[in-house]
This record gives sequence, structure tokens and C-alpha cells, in this order.
Amino acid sequence: MARELLVVIGGDAAGMSAASQARKRRDVDDLEIVAFERGRATSYSACGIPYWIGGAVGSEAELISRSPEQHRANGIDVRMRTEVVGIDLAARRVTARDLETGKEYDQPYDQLVYATGSVPMRPRADGFDAPGVYGVQVLDDGRELIAELDSGRVERVVVVGGGYIGLELAEACQVRGLDVTVVNRSPTPVGTFDPDIGEFIADAVAKMGIRLVFGQPATCVETGPDGRASAVVTADGTRLPADLVVLGLGVRPNVALAQAAGIPLGVSGGVKVDNRMRTEVPGVWSAGDCVESWHRLSGQRMVVALGTHANKQGRVIGINLGGGYATFPGVIGTAITKVCDLEVARTGLSEAEADAAGYCYVTAHVDSTTKAGYFPGAQPIRVKLIAEKRTGTLLGAQIVGRGGSAKRIDALAVCIWNEMSVDEVLSLDLSYAPPFAPVWDPVLIAARKAFEAVEADIARDVRASG
Amino acid sequence: MARELLVVIGGDAAGMSAASQARKRRDVDDLEIVAFERGRATSYSACGIPYWIGGAVGSEAELISRSPEQHRANGIDVRMRTEVVGIDLAARRVTARDLETGKEYDQPYDQLVYATGSVPMRPRADGFDAPGVYGVQVLDDGRELIAELDSGRVERVVVVGGGYIGLELAEACQVRGLDVTVVNRSPTPVGTFDPDIGEFIADAVAKMGIRLVFGQPATCVETGPDGRASAVVTADGTRLPADLVVLGLGVRPNVALAQAAGIPLGVSGGVKVDNRMRTEVPGVWSAGDCVESWHRLSGQRMVVALGTHANKQGRVIGINLGGGYATFPGVIGTAITKVCDLEVARTGLSEAEADAAGYCYVTAHVDSTTKAGYFPGAQPIRVKLIAEKRTGTLLGAQIVGRGGSAKRIDALAVCIWNEMSVDEVLSLDLSYAPPFAPVWDPVLIAARKAFEAVEADIARDVRASG
Repeated sequence: MARELLVVIGGDAAGMSAASQARKRRDVDDLEIVAFERGRATSYSACGIPYWIGGAVGSEAELISRSPEQHRANGIDVRMRTEVVGIDLAARRVTARDLETGKEYDQPYDQLVYATGSVPMRPRADGFDAPGVYGVQVLDDGRELIAELDSGRVERVVVVGGGYIGLELAEACQVRGLDVTVVNRSPTPVGTFDPDIGEFIADAVAKMGIRLVFGQPATCVETGPDGRASAVVTADGTRLPADLVVLGLGVRPNVALAQAAGIPLGVSGGVKVDNRMRTEVPGVWSAGDCVESWHRLSGQRMVVALGTHANKQGRVIGINLGGGYATFPGVIGTAITKVCDLEVARTGLSEAEADAAGYCYVTAHVDSTTKAGYFPGAQPIRVKLIAEKRTGTLLGAQIVGRGGSAKRIDALAVCIWNEMSVDEVLSLDLSYAPPFAPVWDPVLIAARKAFEAVEADIARDVRASG
Repeated sequence: MARELLVVIGGDAAGMSAASQARKRRDVDDLEIVAFERGRATSYSACGIPYWIGGAVGSEAELISRSPEQHRANGIDVRMRTEVVGIDLAARRVTARDLETGKEYDQPYDQLVYATGSVPMRPRADGFDAPGVYGVQVLDDGRELIAELDSGRVERVVVVGGGYIGLELAEACQVRGLDVTVVNRSPTPVGTFDPDIGEFIADAVAKMGIRLVFGQPATCVETGPDGRASAVVTADGTRLPADLVVLGLGVRPNVALAQAAGIPLGVSGGVKVDNRMRTEVPGVWSAGDCVESWHRLSGQRMVVALGTHANKQGRVIGINLGGGYATFPGVIGTAITKVCDLEVARTGLSEAEADAAGYCYVTAHVDSTTKAGYFPGAQPIRVKLIAEKRTGTLLGAQIVGRGGSAKRIDALAVCIWNEMSVDEVLSLDLSYAPPFAPVWDPVLIAARKAFEAVEADIARDVRASG
């Protein structure tokens, strides 16, 4: 059998997971693997960049789980600082450009993995492409931003966007002693949370000494005589002076190359794939931040940029390429973050998402403690549940609290994955001991309250129809 | 309609949950409730007693979630320091004894809740009933033990039994600066964990400065001239001097009264109940540490003495008594504890339990970290999974690690509850961010490894049969 040739575009989580899994299952005589990475690092944690900026992580090297040399030793021909600039699907070849030399060359493939990740959202408005406006997406971005912050030129930072990344970057800059302002279009931050939970997040951010300008979008970036960003202006005309502007508006799938080549995209704008991560073009696979996933509750197609999905999807490709069988079964929107010492997490659908998906539902809130109330170090935790009307099926959960709160979302994520009703949830055999939970874990109390809300709602309906 | 009369025997979690739920649904004109408690407190956390002894919990009052006065204000006639000494099922009445006055009287009932809890296991061997040998079960036991420890007479403590309670009490005494030895029949502590996990626990206990005499039972307690316990002697003749002996051999259901009255027990020795917590005697219900539960994986009947079950079972009785419908759906053996700064947890079946239930299985171990490896404060965590041969159904999980490890057991408990295969588990959408997990959560890595073990096992079988 002739040796097959696998080309991977993108050397981070998705691409290198695919390459490594395929390599594990097929040896070098059977499968040649070439991976192109335009940056200086492979297999790194982009999610860790804010903590590197803030100083909690000491060096760039700590964020790299596998270097190009390690991949090469593993039989993967990694070509660094090399950008793929074109894909010819008919000829089954890509065009690569060495970013150091500018030299371009063609590289044929039998199988292609498209794992180009995402690019930061950048408003088209005036000034957002000026020097001094940073999107933080890859390690090289982090290095540039740190160099700026280390230069001593920067005192005032304006972060545009109050989502996960925006807040993480705002905290990182605040920890460095800078004057930080966050501008956010909505009245509460992190739009994937319902506003009632978002308020807790806003409160925690404000308490850190970060200024919040919420409820209005940034309309333009002003530049100074040197052409660098000097201020962010919001819709109501407020002018926020800035030595540095950081974009925290989220990301969009990096699909330009796919689109130019004719690899079909999905309705969400990400690369369209089946459950085995195959695109609609034979021999072309895709995974990671650039790909479209399926939400198991809403049935919606969506792009979720998260390292954990990228790793799993890459693994699925690698197994399938390696002659095995694996599928990626979709997502349920689980997410977690830390804002100062506040932990927040969510899974399933928010109220807005449940509305959009056409569900009728009840909600329940519980304020409790992470440990038995009498146990030293017990921390406040709030659990919000969203349960479908009538059936009581758990649709969504949001948690906000202090140390030890947020990881409880995982148990609820498994409940949602299994389409459990809140009635079933409240009877679960979850762990209990005073150092770890009250005798009724907050998760179970919340399920009990949600169940009571479902029953009360049914009783109202019966009375109304009687 | 004549007013119905509910009598509750036992004023802790199970009994008072039942009473409170029934009260919530039926008012005083419809249902009279009398509750007998032989101790001095109602609705307290027995699980918190070791932390009160150790000083982490400042006072007895903190362990009480609802006092007799609060219950009375809620319309429940709580009779404290009153022991039920007989039940006449035919006549539907109990005989109660006021422990202060010694006076006995009859109390009729329409509905009876039997919630007498458990009693500490006490070997029948010589000396185990001597003064100075303490079983710690109810708040009054805790108060007596603390008085002993405060007296200044006690320097050396021998704890007999290395289960959860034994170790918690050993730590409590060690924290008070006492010289503590734990004697345990098995070579590793906490028999519900497999020995490979138990070794970590033994190690943590030893590192605290607690002496371990493991692998042999205590055969007798020697007494001094004053008749008080003075030493524990083990099977190989080792004599362990003790000013105080603490029993940590676990508990057995307190069923003497039920047995005498003719309320049928189950094969496990606990009171036999159906899914609504009804005994086989009409009008008699039972819940809590005295009752038999059903293990959803092994199909075995067993007694599990745990406050969280007692609360849920009591709630179920109260709802059913109140005219509603509720069931207790069984247990899966979830448990968690802390030994010094080591956290341990388990759910489902251990290897020994899986063997006993007739399952063939594979196991997988993973050593990882609680947060991203590069994140400050990342702690070591070991996850062990047991998955059924062929199907890959998750049968059991054990976790041992430092801060933030053990509560991860809940997600695995929900997986087991839903009979998920490790293949499904590894694809779950669990929460990820560097302050909370590596990009592959330890739980997911363990599932991945278990899945690989299942596949390798199938491949071996195929080769063997080919």
C-alpha cells in the first residue's frame, strides 16, 4: 500500500491532537504527516494567555504542552512560521508561505485537516485597526501585549467587550496595577449568562477597582498624533482615554481560507462537518474554533471556541484517520470562569436561549454554601436552574459563588446531557460530608425548588383550565 | 374528617424531615404530629461531630439546624429526652418513657415513622463496654467525649477502626495535640475504597503523626484498677496503652425496637421498606440510618448511614403522608471524606463490590492536576475508574487528591446513575478554564483511558477466540 500523506493546517490543540492520534495508530511508513503553523508555538494553551499577562503564569513556555521538536520526534513534520495561503481541493494540494523568507511552495495531500482556529472580532468602525489596539488570540499576541505593558508607556487600558476573554484580560491588566475600564454593549457582562447572574459578575469586577461602562457599545477608537490609539468613544459620546485598547469581543471562526477554497460552511459561519468531523469535501476534515458544532438541547448549529472541544474533536479526526471510529457528539454550552475570587459557570440553555429554542420553562434560585454552613471556609454559592414546563427536564444551570462553587456545574452538565428531569436530579446520590457540602447539596436544593416550581405551574394550569 | 395522628420516633434528620414535610402539606387541624427524641437535640448534624471535637466547629449549637422550640413553633409536638420503649402494632400505640422522670405512658398513633438511626458497632470481646470506651453517634456522645478530652486526664487515644468515622475522630484528637493510634483489621483503611486508593489515605494519616496499627483486629480492651479502659490489645498481642478508646468500627441500624414489635427487617438487617419508604406494616414508615436501601448497580439491599439519604428519605415519607407521591430511588454508594488535607471520594462499585456482584471489568488510573498544570495552586489528583468488560458501562469511580479533587466525584456519580459507558463519558461537555481544570479534565482523561482498556480487552478476546 502506498504511503498516505496527511496535511494539517494549524498547529494548536485541534490540529495537533488529530496529528498525534493518527500517528499513534499508523506508523511513519504508512502515514506521512506534515503540519503547518504560522506562529512560533505548537500545542499551547490560548486560554492561559490572560494568566500569563497577569503574571499568575510565569512564562510562555509553561503554556506549551508539546513543542515543535517534540512533535517532530514523534514523527510529525511540523513547519513553523509557515502559513497556508491557498487550498486547491481539486488538485489536493495547499500552497504554503514561509513567513521568514516569504518563499511559497505547493504541498500535496491525501487527507487534509483544517484547524485554523479563530480570529478576534474587530469592529469595522474607525480606529479599531490602529496600532495600540490588541486582539489576544495566539501566543504571539500575548508576547506583543506583554512587551507593551512592560514598556512602561501604558497606564490606562480600555477593554472593549465584557465577555469571558474581556474580563480575564481586564483582570490581568488590573493585577499589573493599571487603570482599567471595560466597555460593554449590554447592561450586564458575559452575555451567555442571564442578567440576574451577570449582575454578580459586574459587581465582582467593579469591586476589583475596574471601571465598568456598560449598556452601550464602543463606537470608535481615537488616535493620537503618532497614529496610535488614544481613546475609546462610546455611543453616548463618553471619551475614555487609553494608552492601550484590548479587544474582548469574542472570536469568529477563521474560515477565510476554507471559504476561498470552496469548503462549505454551516449556517453559523463555521466549517460544516458531520459527526466524524468530515467536511463535505472528500478527504478534508475540520476541528477546533473554526468548526461548527451542534447544541444537543436547542438543536442549533453554533461555533464554540473552547480548547476542550478542540482537543476532543482533534482526537476524533485522528482516530478516524487512523482507521478507527469515533464521533463528536455535540455540545451543551458548558463554560466556567473566574473573576477575581468570584467563580461563575453555566451549562445548557440560558433563559434567552431557551426562549429562542421555543421552550416554556420555570426557574429556581438557591442561595446556599459550598460546605456545611457551620464548617470553616464555607463560601456562598447561588445556583439557578431552568426546567422545562410540564416535563421538568433540566434545560440549563448557572452557578455563581466563591471558592469551590463553579465546578459543581459538571454534575449538572451530566444531568442535562442525560435529559434528566429535576425530579430525578433531586434524588441523585451526590457526595456529602461537612467539609464538602451541606447535607442537601446546593445543586439538590435547587433541583428540589425547580421541581416545586414545575408542580406549582402544573397546578396553575389545571386550575386555569378547570 | 377526623384529625389524623402521626407519631415520629427519632428527632434527627429522617424523622424531622418527614414531620416537617407532612406539616407543610397538612395543617394542624388535619394532622397532629408528635415526635419523640431521647436526646437533648433535634435536627442536628451527626456528621459534624468530629469537627466539633477537633475544634473546627466552635459549639454544639452550630450543628443544630432546627431546635425543638423551632419545631414546636411549626406545629410539631416534640417530646425531648423521651425514649420510645415499645410499639404495639395491633393497638397502634407506642410506649414512651420520660428519661428525666422515668415515667412511662402510652401514645396512640394512626401513622408511625420509625427513624431511630444507628448505633456504633461495639465488639463483644472483653473490655469494649468498659468506661473510657466511647462510641460517637449522637450529640450527647460528642459532648461527653469533649468533656473527657477537656479534663486533662487524656493523653493517649486509641481509635478502633479505620473507616470514615474512625479516621475523622483520629484526626480530631490529633488536632487537639493528643497521641493517637488507629487500629484496623484490614491492611488499608476505609474498606469501601480499593486497597490501591486506601494506601494514599493511610499515607496521609501517617504523615499527620497518627500511628497506624493495620492488618490486625483489636481483640480486647484492658482495664485499670479503676475499671476504666487502659489499653487496647491487638491479635498479635501488641498492647497499645490508652487513656481513652474511641470506637470507629461503623454503625449498625438501630432496629431493636422494630424487631421486638414485629416490623419486618430486610436481608441487610435494616428495616425493610418499599420505594415510598413504607414498611410491611400498614401505617408504619421508616427512614434514615435504620432503614434498608437498594443499590442501583449491584441490586443488593444494604444499609447506608448517611445524613443526605436520611434527609431525602424523610422528605419522601412526609410528601406521601401529606397526600403527595414521592419515592426514594436507591443509592449508588457515593461517599466523600477529608483526611488532613487529602480529599477522597468514591461512587458506584469498588473492585471487590463489582466482583461480588458478578461483573467482569477493566480499570484505569490517571494522575493529573485539579487545575491546568501551569496554573498556580494546581493540586495532584488521582482518578480510578472501573468499567464493565465489553459494554464499557461505568461501574465505579474513586478519587484521591488535594484541594478541589474530591467533589469531582459528583459528575461521575451522575454518569453511573445514568448507566453511561466510558465512551460516552469521555465526550461529555464538562467545564474547562485554566483555574478549574486541565484542558482534558482528569475525569475525562480517566474515561478515555478506561475506554482504551475496554477496547484492548475486546481485542484480546477476539485474538484469543480467533
